[in-house]
Amino acid sequence: MRLIVDVMSGDSEALEAVKGALKAHRELGVDITLVGDEKTVTDALETLSVTPNDSVKVVHAASVVTMEDDYLVVIKSKKDSSMSVGLNLLKAGEGDAFISTGNTGALVAGASLIVRKAKGIKAAAIGAVIPLGAPMLLIDAGANVAPNAETMKQFALMGSIYMENMFGLKSPRVALINNGTEETKGNDLARETYGLLKECPDVNFIGNIEGRDVVNSVCDVLVADGYTGNIILKLVEGFGKFMSKTLKSMFKKNFKTIIGALFLKSEAKALKKSMDYTEYGGAPLLGISAPVIKAHGNSGEKGVFSACRQAKTFVETGIIDEIAALGAKMREEKRGTENE
Amino acid sequence: MRLIVDVMSGDSEALEAVKGALKAHRELGVDITLVGDEKTVTDALETLSVTPNDSVKVVHAASVVTMEDDYLVVIKSKKDSSMSVGLNLLKAGEGDAFISTGNTGALVAGASLIVRKAKGIKAAAIGAVIPLGAPMLLIDAGANVAPNAETMKQFALMGSIYMENMFGLKSPRVALINNGTEETKGNDLARETYGLLKECPDVNFIGNIEGRDVVNSVCDVLVADGYTGNIILKLVEGFGKFMSKTLKSMFKKNFKTIIGALFLKSEAKALKKSMDYTEYGGAPLLGISAPVIKAHGNSGEKGVFSACRQAKTFVETGIIDEIAALGAKMREEKRGTENE
Repeated sequence: MRLIVDVMSGDSEALEAVKGALKAHRELGVDITLVGDEKTVTDALETLSVTPNDSVKVVHAASVVTMEDDYLVVIKSKKDSSMSVGLNLLKAGEGDAFISTGNTGALVAGASLIVRKAKGIKAAAIGAVIPLGAPMLLIDAGANVAPNAETMKQFALMGSIYMENMFGLKSPRVALINNGTEETKGNDLARETYGLLKECPDVNFIGNIEGRDVVNSVCDVLVADGYTGNIILKLVEGFGKFMSKTLKSMFKKNFKTIIGALFLKSEAKALKKSMDYTEYGGAPLLGISAPVIKAHGNSGEKGVFSACRQAKTFVETGIIDEIAALGAKMREEKRGTENE
Repeated sequence: MRLIVDVMSGDSEALEAVKGALKAHRELGVDITLVGDEKTVTDALETLSVTPNDSVKVVHAASVVTMEDDYLVVIKSKKDSSMSVGLNLLKAGEGDAFISTGNTGALVAGASLIVRKAKGIKAAAIGAVIPLGAPMLLIDAGANVAPNAETMKQFALMGSIYMENMFGLKSPRVALINNGTEETKGNDLARETYGLLKECPDVNFIGNIEGRDVVNSVCDVLVADGYTGNIILKLVEGFGKFMSKTLKSMFKKNFKTIIGALFLKSEAKALKKSMDYTEYGGAPLLGISAPVIKAHGNSGEKGVFSACRQAKTFVETGIIDEIAALGAKMREEKRGTENE
């Protein structure tokens, strides 16, 4: 197995991404292709006393997609970027999965247009594992701000496939985020999606959940349109930071609290770990014909390593084949409806 | 000043609501009208050794709107409910503000249809003060799941009026929740709303904010459609509970942590207080021609008292007049546009 890693597009130094990828190479036994400015990458390898070879390849890319770039640069003005080059390697079969810490919009657009969506899948979605209690996949976390109900149903199906394969869940519980639990709640999209999910035999639909239940591990897959999903994801991230900031200032307040904090050190550390999004790696792009993972923009060595570990499982399981089969089924159903 | 309090519609005992209202009567010097089943309310008063009089009136209502009732019962099958009776008292000028802990949907519908919206205001909105850091008004927290951009602009204007009057903020900072900070981000509604807010001289618009900034006190008014706003509000509530549950189990884990917790007791208490939504009372319904406040469903004495205190300020400030003036201006602008 070979993982293609874009080591240039994140907010951290290329050296950190290179370290994470090398750790994956050593510990997980995968070959790696590091994509980025050749000199920067070989310098990083030299710092780490590693010489490029068949198992650790370097592929040059002349430019970098920035976080501020328009998402279409990846197929327009920056075709020579580490993101584009990496996606093209994946498309050409020069690796089994692609990992990037870069611009999410550009990665979704590039993956959809270069690697291509699975046939029959209407739109690629960003799946994000929420690290509060039991892992829950939020889909879509921001790729499609205005999907239709049929696309939302595909999110539910792809999310179920992902959680079943990655976390070994039998028949994952799927819920729809809404402003109330009743079937009649929500905007047009939510109500229409509810109707489709209720009738779908391949989705273990448990109904609507409200915002307060996002933190309560009541479902395994949470379906949302990309606008709402992105707000939820970032709100959860913001909470995590708020909580650790609040605890820190509480612990440091005065002599008494500093003493108290000493007694709570290991528990505070465990809590921090349980809310650490880098534990689960990155966000999979579901609906693309090959595995693509968006690692967090400021992933250091640990984040990139986790994303590589996740990519390995992604490749080993049948997710891509199952999503291809899902797409084929959707096309057939559509053809059936049209012929009626 | 007289406050009309629906003491029957909440999840708590009527006695608790009566206690909260009586506390407001004693401490804030307001007259109160308690609406509910006459026997239940007079029994509660008797328990508290209070005899009804001109300052503490009881008005009988034969039924109660439940949390499960359809929102239209308030003007249909349950016209004799404590909520309907209270709203009709407000409409008739038999009090200056109405407070209910009941079914939000029914209260919004009842207030809009019985008390009526201010002329020129397209829709009433639920404002909810988010208790993380500096107070921030989230508007709409769930009254309108599918508003248009013009309605969203009115939310921004009404929210500004509310925060200016209630919290003494000069030119409150208004932001739009979105899946990115750039003007081009979001669904059609968000993009169109951005355009209107940018051009509106009466709104101090600071642009889009992402989910992670909801906890960072970067704005005073956060504009959202009711679907998204409701999800945000409940997520914030859920997070508060998650945080206090997490801290509790961390403190109680073993002998060592119990000792540690003793040193942190007053800080933990202060934290809990800072995240307590009952501190700010309830959620104002903005756009109605008289003050209506939705207190949290499980408000006990403290929650109802806070909502009464808030209602008093609501009445004393010029909010209702300013919203009426806003509605008049909106009607004139519309007429102007139509004549062009």
